[in-house]
Amino acid sequence: MKETVIKNISIGDELLIGQVVNTNAAWLGERLSDAGFQLNSTLTIGDSEKAILDAFNACMDADLVLVTGGLGPTADDITKPTVCKFFETELEFCQEAYDNIVSLFNRRGFQMSERNRGQAMLPKSCEYIPNTYGTAPCMWIEKNGVAFAFMPGVPFEMKGIFTDELLPRMMERFHAIPYEKRVIMTTGIGESFLADKIKDWEEALPDFLSLAYLPQYGMVRLRLSGRHEDARLLHETLNDEVAKLAALIPDYIFAMQDQPIERTVFDLLINKGVTFASAESCTGGNIAHVFTLIPGSSEVFKGTAVTYATPMKTKVLGVPDEMIEKYGVVSQQVVESMATGVRNLMESDFGVATTGIAGPSGGTDDNPVGTVWIGVASSSGAVSKRFNFGKDRENVINRATIAAYEMLREGILANSLS
Amino acid sequence: MKETVIKNISIGDELLIGQVVNTNAAWLGERLSDAGFQLNSTLTIGDSEKAILDAFNACMDADLVLVTGGLGPTADDITKPTVCKFFETELEFCQEAYDNIVSLFNRRGFQMSERNRGQAMLPKSCEYIPNTYGTAPCMWIEKNGVAFAFMPGVPFEMKGIFTDELLPRMMERFHAIPYEKRVIMTTGIGESFLADKIKDWEEALPDFLSLAYLPQYGMVRLRLSGRHEDARLLHETLNDEVAKLAALIPDYIFAMQDQPIERTVFDLLINKGVTFASAESCTGGNIAHVFTLIPGSSEVFKGTAVTYATPMKTKVLGVPDEMIEKYGVVSQQVVESMATGVRNLMESDFGVATTGIAGPSGGTDDNPVGTVWIGVASSSGAVSKRFNFGKDRENVINRATIAAYEMLREGILANSLS
Repeated sequence: MKETVIKNISIGDELLIGQVVNTNAAWLGERLSDAGFQLNSTLTIGDSEKAILDAFNACMDADLVLVTGGLGPTADDITKPTVCKFFETELEFCQEAYDNIVSLFNRRGFQMSERNRGQAMLPKSCEYIPNTYGTAPCMWIEKNGVAFAFMPGVPFEMKGIFTDELLPRMMERFHAIPYEKRVIMTTGIGESFLADKIKDWEEALPDFLSLAYLPQYGMVRLRLSGRHEDARLLHETLNDEVAKLAALIPDYIFAMQDQPIERTVFDLLINKGVTFASAESCTGGNIAHVFTLIPGSSEVFKGTAVTYATPMKTKVLGVPDEMIEKYGVVSQQVVESMATGVRNLMESDFGVATTGIAGPSGGTDDNPVGTVWIGVASSSGAVSKRFNFGKDRENVINRATIAAYEMLREGILANSLS
Repeated sequence: MKETVIKNISIGDELLIGQVVNTNAAWLGERLSDAGFQLNSTLTIGDSEKAILDAFNACMDADLVLVTGGLGPTADDITKPTVCKFFETELEFCQEAYDNIVSLFNRRGFQMSERNRGQAMLPKSCEYIPNTYGTAPCMWIEKNGVAFAFMPGVPFEMKGIFTDELLPRMMERFHAIPYEKRVIMTTGIGESFLADKIKDWEEALPDFLSLAYLPQYGMVRLRLSGRHEDARLLHETLNDEVAKLAALIPDYIFAMQDQPIERTVFDLLINKGVTFASAESCTGGNIAHVFTLIPGSSEVFKGTAVTYATPMKTKVLGVPDEMIEKYGVVSQQVVESMATGVRNLMESDFGVATTGIAGPSGGTDDNPVGTVWIGVASSSGAVSKRFNFGKDRENVINRATIAAYEMLREGILANSLS
């Protein structure tokens, strides 16, 4: 069967002058793949009538055009009249869109402006699709058999509407070729070493499957994916191949699905019915931050003490003054004392702690920028490890956070075996 | 003088399936603007002959086409033969390109593969431009007065070649119109209200200036930019207009340059020689996290207590049990007590606290999901405000973090006046 041709048009001067990176297009591309479609192209243009008309015309060979952006309370001055021109229609007041805007403002306790009222004026021949995430409308409109779906450019609104409204419509209307992917998360091994270890397996993969290496902050994601009209064959082949892969590199895999390591730790904690808390110096609250993005994290996460100022390590966590003086703040003794201290303070089963030098300054000969001690405390005592994560501050913070969760994971597993 | 029409074509399957976000296009857009050019559009396509030929044809109305990607050791199997087809030429061995690849491999101590040798085969009628950053060639080739420049897709190679080689050629060959921009950061006012407030000013702007609204998580960035052959007139007009704007909305501006609000707070704290600490419930450490990304933050940031488990609010921060029982965890009394508590605990000049319901569950009739109380404590007592940030967990956390910094900024300013 013929492949559904789907094109994206991203509207916004801010994309062309580089003030905003077009993450919407990448997100849409991934979601479309997952659903069995393929994004054919993305065309990014500015907020001008001519550019918009040219782009619409250039997409008339598609089945579906996903348009993002150009619908905010100020930009829609250009986009909506241009839509009317192209689709030979005119703006009219849409009660449903108006009601949605009013209820949104009521919920947030704000007053509506004249401009927001204007957002309820929609092209007459379009179908209004409710946007419960914001005031910009979502619209579906067709011309010569080509469907155009207009979504706001604000990423979280676009993602919500696409998932809730557009994708279900697409699945009904267009042909999707079954696609399936598996993501295997590894840590503790570099990309090229990993590639060597699984080379024979990779070369023997069937034609309709492909493997991608996606390295990031001390982890390598492996994505094995394929498309096939026979969904069952695809599914079973993936099962077989993933099992073979897992047997090749058991020590490096922390998850058999695309999830951050803190999610693996969350599942483990829930399963074992245990809790943790963190004491963070160089990671500055990032261990807590990434964990609390998980809904339900409050069940297993007690809290965090970010003790950025050295005296707070003593006052809040009970790290002895003399220990800091003798060994220095970035030391095995201090990190283990921090981990034990926060475990006691927060009354949790596990305590994880970091102390190090994120940079760009503060390095010494003994502890250059990038040095990080990570410790984990449990009922059976404290363990710790020393790392060096290089000289980029953000990179040090991210890699230390991932390493802390890997050590916490090992700690939970070791403690439930004993 | 006529505007130089510049288009970008980004080639790569990985961009369309969302595996890689197209940051090259944004980077090029920004550099072109700064240099006095305008990027007209970006077209992202996959690694296929048909897609590449269609894209080339669609760009024949441009003066210059900047092509990125499609030249790596595997992808160039498709791109280079397609280039030859379009430009009616054939591949031939290029000694200069070959020498460059050899010297690169020697420098890195690696062995050359057959594929790398193939990278020295270039279209006969192209001009070879050396790439000192990697093995992929950079090429300049023309057809019917349209210039095509091909660059590798690896961001750091592309940036290097564009800066070293292409931009200087462009400045010689094409007409650049001087460009200048200013970014004004606002918070505490929605996009449409802001637009209403500055409507008269905006409408009176000279033709060569334009204003863009860039809303993001409870902030609106205003970008005033312009292009004019008379660079001095442009500069002075921008000075005047920005001064007028600042006078119109003094209460909402937190920075006269493009920076996050925590950076403004950092500068303020350094200037005043004062410190802060945070007590975070629903923001889960994000207030600490964004602040500690700033190098040097340890000078003014004492630490954070993330008290996710309710009893920890009492134990760590000293919020009275009875208060929590009487008013609930998400209340004015508790947030002010948390702010005061962390200020005492961490011995800082200011304490900022958050308590709320990030969702997706946990909402009640009185406190629906998205409700957040934010408090700031100082030597003159505690103040607090109630917000609703909607129903998306990540959005609630980000918006609450920004609102907390805005309240902290107000607190610091108010305290230094008294």
